[in-house]
Amino acid sequence: MALKRLYLPFNTIVKNIMHYKHPRQSHTVMTELVMPNDTNPHNNLMGGNLLKWMDIAGAICARRHANRICVTANVDNVSFKSAIKLGEVVSIEASATRVFNTSMEVFIQVFAEGLASEGRRKCNEAYFTFVCVDEFGNTVRILPLEPETTAETKQWESALRRRQMRLILAGRMQASEATELKELFLMES
Amino acid sequence: MALKRLYLPFNTIVKNIMHYKHPRQSHTVMTELVMPNDTNPHNNLMGGNLLKWMDIAGAICARRHANRICVTANVDNVSFKSAIKLGEVVSIEASATRVFNTSMEVFIQVFAEGLASEGRRKCNEAYFTFVCVDEFGNTVRILPLEPETTAETKQWESALRRRQMRLILAGRMQASEATELKELFLMES
Amino acid sequence: MALKRLYLPFNTIVKNIMHYKHPRQSHTVMTELVMPNDTNPHNNLMGGNLLKWMDIAGAICARRHANRICVTANVDNVSFKSAIKLGEVVSIEASATRVFNTSMEVFIQVFAEGLASEGRRKCNEAYFTFVCVDEFGNTVRILPLEPETTAETKQWESALRRRQMRLILAGRMQASEATELKELFLMES
Amino acid sequence: MALKRLYLPFNTIVKNIMHYKHPRQSHTVMTELVMPNDTNPHNNLMGGNLLKWMDIAGAICARRHANRICVTANVDNVSFKSAIKLGEVVSIEASATRVFNTSMEVFIQVFAEGLASEGRRKCNEAYFTFVCVDEFGNTVRILPLEPETTAETKQWESALRRRQMRLILAGRMQASEATELKELFLMES
Amino acid sequence: MALKRLYLPFNTIVKNIMHYKHPRQSHTVMTELVMPNDTNPHNNLMGGNLLKWMDIAGAICARRHANRICVTANVDNVSFKSAIKLGEVVSIEASATRVFNTSMEVFIQVFAEGLASEGRRKCNEAYFTFVCVDEFGNTVRILPLEPETTAETKQWESALRRRQMRLILAGRMQASEATELKELFLMES
Amino acid sequence: MALKRLYLPFNTIVKNIMHYKHPRQSHTVMTELVMPNDTNPHNNLMGGNLLKWMDIAGAICARRHANRICVTANVDNVSFKSAIKLGEVVSIEASATRVFNTSMEVFIQVFAEGLASEGRRKCNEAYFTFVCVDEFGNTVRILPLEPETTAETKQWESALRRRQMRLILAGRMQASEATELKELFLMES
Repeated sequence: MALKRLYLPFNTIVKNIMHYKHPRQSHTVMTELVMPNDTNPHNNLMGGNLLKWMDIAGAICARRHANRICVTANVDNVSFKSAIKLGEVVSIEASATRVFNTSMEVFIQVFAEGLASEGRRKCNEAYFTFVCVDEFGNTVRILPLEPETTAETKQWESALRRRQMRLILAGRMQASEATELKELFLMES
Repeated sequence: MALKRLYLPFNTIVKNIMHYKHPRQSHTVMTELVMPNDTNPHNNLMGGNLLKWMDIAGAICARRHANRICVTANVDNVSFKSAIKLGEVVSIEASATRVFNTSMEVFIQVFAEGLASEGRRKCNEAYFTFVCVDEFGNTVRILPLEPETTAETKQWESALRRRQMRLILAGRMQASEATELKELFLMES
Repeated sequence: MALKRLYLPFNTIVKNIMHYKHPRQSHTVMTELVMPNDTNPHNNLMGGNLLKWMDIAGAICARRHANRICVTANVDNVSFKSAIKLGEVVSIEASATRVFNTSMEVFIQVFAEGLASEGRRKCNEAYFTFVCVDEFGNTVRILPLEPETTAETKQWESALRRRQMRLILAGRMQASEATELKELFLMES
Repeated sequence: MALKRLYLPFNTIVKNIMHYKHPRQSHTVMTELVMPNDTNPHNNLMGGNLLKWMDIAGAICARRHANRICVTANVDNVSFKSAIKLGEVVSIEASATRVFNTSMEVFIQVFAEGLASEGRRKCNEAYFTFVCVDEFGNTVRILPLEPETTAETKQWESALRRRQMRLILAGRMQASEATELKELFLMES
Repeated sequence: MALKRLYLPFNTIVKNIMHYKHPRQSHTVMTELVMPNDTNPHNNLMGGNLLKWMDIAGAICARRHANRICVTANVDNVSFKSAIKLGEVVSIEASATRVFNTSMEVFIQVFAEGLASEGRRKCNEAYFTFVCVDEFGNTVRILPLEPETTAETKQWESALRRRQMRLILAGRMQASEATELKELFLMES
Repeated sequence: MALKRLYLPFNTIVKNIMHYKHPRQSHTVMTELVMPNDTNPHNNLMGGNLLKWMDIAGAICARRHANRICVTANVDNVSFKSAIKLGEVVSIEASATRVFNTSMEVFIQVFAEGLASEGRRKCNEAYFTFVCVDEFGNTVRILPLEPETTAETKQWESALRRRQMRLILAGRMQASEATELKELFLMES
């Protein structure tokens, strides 16, 4: 029997060693009910509470991909368009978009639903970046992410541009070096 | 009697009507103790909890300036550099930087302090934008802000650039129109 | 064109009036991170906290089906088999199984996942019954539920047996009248 | 002096070794004020919050009897009859009913009181089962319970029937083997 | 039959109108489990959390006596002698001691119990004063309190001394006027 | 260079060893928004919540002075004069007043502000006493406090009187021994 194992074809042996994961393997859905303490005196969900929920959903998505504790490194610009009222149900959906060695970007979407309508409305979205750390606070290399669908591939590609923007805003990259980002600016103008 | 009022010296009439406020009139300091439920399994303050505290500090600062309930409209890119540990004391300082009709920008700084050292370390900073709304959800015009110090004037001036960035990111302005922002990019390259 | 509309076959006109909903239309996924305050001194999630999360997930599922606030009327026997540890991620999935006029049964499953393994383990399950009430506390008739899959149909059928058990336990039905339940006892013996 | 001790009558020596405890020695009363965050949008206490409070009261009662941490193993069918409103005071009373080696059953009653009346109304009741565990998660033998009053004795006796029901529902006992439970069914029919 | 009622002796008619209540009619027992978020970084229950629980227990006791919402008017000197640890069970017992027109004094005792010992240790005690208010914030006259036991009578009598102390500390009474308090000082010296 | 250091004047060497701190070095400002769960059914902030916030502000002030964890030892008489409403902003300011070997007194003031007025109103004040403890629960000597302003000096002096009152109330000092306190009584009568 020991011999048999030695002669197993190579791909059978390594089959269980993962080289990457797909976005759907860490996709996370969180559902929350807006309670009185989550709201401001006008009975709207406070922006800070929504940010907290988005951060938890994103951190769970990141650890599902990385199989380790992940901590928030960056939050991209978040815009609050539609007020969410007391008593509404909020769904937060988080999907990994790309891995950069020890950090990964997660795309987070927020939906709200009241009682009257059956549908739900999109309230806002944001990109959070997480880094994977060990017990001593050292960053750890993260397994790559392999997009499957067209939408995932698009997110995976545009992640580079968003990363350049972050580096510029953090003062760690010159605007002139941001090749990907420049294209965007040229495209838009 | 109507005549009498007409002949009152000008400054007597307008004395009680405020035309603006200074940043120091709404400056807000919040102090929090990092409790177990605020942390991740590595005993670090979760990013989402910090965002929530920053949002509350900013909203209090905004309402102190506007004398009305203010709701979060936008959060600029936030970067988390220094981990904050369980049991540390966190100070959040919020200062109004500029008013744009019905919205205002608030600058928020986060400091942490442990037991050993007497000083405190800067952990991160961010710009939050709030809009002022009435009970029916309509936006309300906000009293202008008048900077006093050099630092406040600098923040007041750069607020225009940050606003252009927000409008571009929200797809409500062309990159080519962002005169103020372009300068920054040219300056940096 | 106006004429055309008048002569439309009857079923085309009523198409938009719902006669029932499918379980997938109200299926609810909740994700929670076990925080220190959710645990007992042995660092296990307290049973009562899990019951609270199950109740919220169930109530959201029920209101998604009924488009009205639903309140808990009954919780069937719940057994806690696998301890859930501090820092684990808990997923709660709620599915409507059957509607009985003004009450509906929801099936709730609990899964937990740590860091090491990629899979998740089933921790427990329970049937919650909700009633739909208006602002004055009066019960309201609920839209029927139409099972689609084989599993849903099986749940829909066995719901009758579980309802008889509840009525007997509440002293509102004689054991001898519980035709469906008797079968189960005979089957088992 | 050593001799003296040897000749002490036997019952003097063992006097301090407990062989059992009475229900009154672990009886637990919890009082809670229904706060805004405990309620649903109709201002009624959410069922899940009540279950959480019942679980804590039961766990305190169990540890008072066992002198060890006890974890929830099972919750029998709970029925919610009377809505409890925001601002009401809730009393939860927990009494140990019987010990089965490493598990024990606790009877929990819930009462609510408003402002107008002086009395309190019974809202619901349930049987929770707890197991006693050590730091490593191993179950530990629990000291027997000795009923004193007629009501306590009745609860102690009927605990056997309830246990059979739990074992059947958990698929760990055949309905035909449940001698005690059968009597109940015969009695009722 | 109507006649019969007219000739009923006076005391029969007024029997149902309460002239006072006894302390036991509003006696309140609260039980809390010390959770991680209730403690300081040394794992001891924070003083402020205990004060909050004492205040809630006292307010429930006061409203049980007054049948109205009661608000905290004063807290006498509270001394914290025995540290309470994470995971311990805390019992708070509140008893009305005396009514002064629109205010009433409540005596609050705190006990803690761990796992090892069966007994509980007294941790601290305090006198809280509550006033009874209506919806518009006006103070309302409270039903008198009638002590029954010797201990209750002693508390009822010494309440006068404590009230003088409060009035002096609030600057609303001259030390020379405090007849009851002077005795205490003379007695002690 | 090593030599140079040896010949430095003495006071240069010890410059960095603190002999005391000033009150402004530990002054603490906490800002809280009154949320629904902080209020009683009349929408007023519950006294117990305010006491909790005062305790946290005081404990942070004490640890900022002592550079160690400080635990609450005593709370002097607290009087609640002005009701604070739901949605108001509460500021709590804590200042060290005097150090007594292993304990220190902190003066805490509470202010509230609504939306209409720009000013804030003083709601109440209290003196909390904290002791400094190490990990094993032993008390630790605290660095002395050096008042700078006239107001600080006045608080520093009157701290002795307040301490005598505490010792008398705790039964650890005879009224006749309280030299400082007697003066106060004589002064007032």
